[in-house]
Amino acid sequence: MKALKKPPNPSKAMKTMTDFSQNASAVRAAELLRGSDGIAILCHINPDGDTIGSAYALAGMLEQLGKSTCVLCAGEIPAKYDYARRGLKLACETPQTVVAADVATSELLGALGERFAAVDLLIDHHGAGTDYARLTVRDAAASSTTVLMLRMAGLLGVTLTPQMADALFTGLVTDTGCFRYSNTNAEAHLAAVTLMEAGAAADEINKLMFETKSRAEMDFTRLALDTLEYFCDGKVAVMSITDEMRARSGFFSEELGEIPQFARRVEGVICGITLKQKSGDTFKVSLRTNSEMDATVLAAKFGGGGHVRAAGCTLHGDLASVRDRLVAAAGEMLR
Amino acid sequence: MKALKKPPNPSKAMKTMTDFSQNASAVRAAELLRGSDGIAILCHINPDGDTIGSAYALAGMLEQLGKSTCVLCAGEIPAKYDYARRGLKLACETPQTVVAADVATSELLGALGERFAAVDLLIDHHGAGTDYARLTVRDAAASSTTVLMLRMAGLLGVTLTPQMADALFTGLVTDTGCFRYSNTNAEAHLAAVTLMEAGAAADEINKLMFETKSRAEMDFTRLALDTLEYFCDGKVAVMSITDEMRARSGFFSEELGEIPQFARRVEGVICGITLKQKSGDTFKVSLRTNSEMDATVLAAKFGGGGHVRAAGCTLHGDLASVRDRLVAAAGEMLR
Repeated sequence: MKALKKPPNPSKAMKTMTDFSQNASAVRAAELLRGSDGIAILCHINPDGDTIGSAYALAGMLEQLGKSTCVLCAGEIPAKYDYARRGLKLACETPQTVVAADVATSELLGALGERFAAVDLLIDHHGAGTDYARLTVRDAAASSTTVLMLRMAGLLGVTLTPQMADALFTGLVTDTGCFRYSNTNAEAHLAAVTLMEAGAAADEINKLMFETKSRAEMDFTRLALDTLEYFCDGKVAVMSITDEMRARSGFFSEELGEIPQFARRVEGVICGITLKQKSGDTFKVSLRTNSEMDATVLAAKFGGGGHVRAAGCTLHGDLASVRDRLVAAAGEMLR
Repeated sequence: MKALKKPPNPSKAMKTMTDFSQNASAVRAAELLRGSDGIAILCHINPDGDTIGSAYALAGMLEQLGKSTCVLCAGEIPAKYDYARRGLKLACETPQTVVAADVATSELLGALGERFAAVDLLIDHHGAGTDYARLTVRDAAASSTTVLMLRMAGLLGVTLTPQMADALFTGLVTDTGCFRYSNTNAEAHLAAVTLMEAGAAADEINKLMFETKSRAEMDFTRLALDTLEYFCDGKVAVMSITDEMRARSGFFSEELGEIPQFARRVEGVICGITLKQKSGDTFKVSLRTNSEMDATVLAAKFGGGGHVRAAGCTLHGDLASVRDRLVAAAGEMLR
């Protein structure tokens, strides 16, 4: 009988996490950060878990290195992310160095773009982003910008704290839909292992980000499902979220969680479109596509952008005309 | 300036996967399997991704070792899991050795329990299970039984194939709600790394298990959300699924996916109850609880069982009386 072996050796897994020590931009970025003090970290407008988690994690790293830092956002950072900044000082009155975290284009800095005309460093994972900073660390293969921040932690020589681990885990799960979206790669799972071992409160974060919904949000979800319409032989599905639905359910949050995924999830749908009414005749549009279609191409037709499977744009008009223009453009791409 | 370091070393992660070579039952199980031929692998009734994935993965391992094997279930295995058995012979006319995979109690063998009165080996991760087999390999800390099967792969000295990886990944994601439920530990993520590197089609499996829903299922989800009711100061939520809703939506699948999670997800809910009408006055009940409540205790009051956060039972009566009995029992536990 052959000798019994040990469990499958996960040593291959160690190679899964990209080594940033050979990446010239990342090495320069680490040198820049280590040589700086008074570092402002900028988030994008409509901040999500990845930009917030990246910023708070980097702030934790920089404070561990004895530097003063602050996290700025043109919009309000929702209070539910406060756990990810616990223990941080975030005191930096006159920033000397400016870092943008997960901010694909300078437009997404919002009002901060005027205050900080020059960005020293951009760390980002959006393939369709622009290199508006003096130095850019970009890897579109990374599942989240927090994965890049985890790689940076190694270059900076910091010890991961539970605060950093929570912040990094937050961006990891929000950008991968809790490891469900197609951008989830082996490095994302290995990052989860590393972060859970560093003390990330994975279960609590998952509950907060995905599990717990208010009654108002549950009602809102039901109303949203009621609006699903199908076009182009069922290849395009549209969900419409109106001011009136907001009022009926009492759910006014900007963060819609999984709701923009619903339209795409229906069998046969290649392009899921979610229209979100903003102040009457303005609609923010979420585009989610399956592998047959590039969401950034559709978004670009309306001046928007994003990722290959998840992009967005803004249109003006009444609900029906906005819907019809999007469906027509999607239908044309599918032909 | 301090020397730049490499990325966080995931070597700790290698210790995350439990070493089965020191586990006496597991070593005996591997010896039993290596010394056997003609091995029947049994699934539990109402088969899910974990029992099916465990069985197909083990079958793949045994066939790689040159053994004849078959996978049996008292219920029909849904065709959507066929990818997880591709390339297998599954030809074993007169089984000599009987293995149960993920079958917590002998009752869950259903009709197979009569045909196979003696089970040689049980591999299972249910804490509340019984040791009805001659030899049991049980670890309630494992996120899924497929995690135990991955550990067994090491003991058996097999090389993971993409078929095995797909089968193992299937149970991993279905039992953890795609890494979202509280049973998801670091080993689960490390198993994902190992399986993705062994060729698991993670994205396709996630889509199949979680993303894609028929229009009928979407309609059904909407109708199910309509039934949410709250009791005990909002600590108990009940969702009721009736034959009439099945008929209206045209969705008749036994597999409800995430739907039984909805009731628990509402803010403030400690116990989420989903009632599923079966042929008139029989209701299958899914219980999902938050950390304040043990679902197995509530299930046991009605002759059921399961996991601490996810259990089930069956009640008879009309919808209102079944609901009231469950709510009363849950309310009593919460006082």
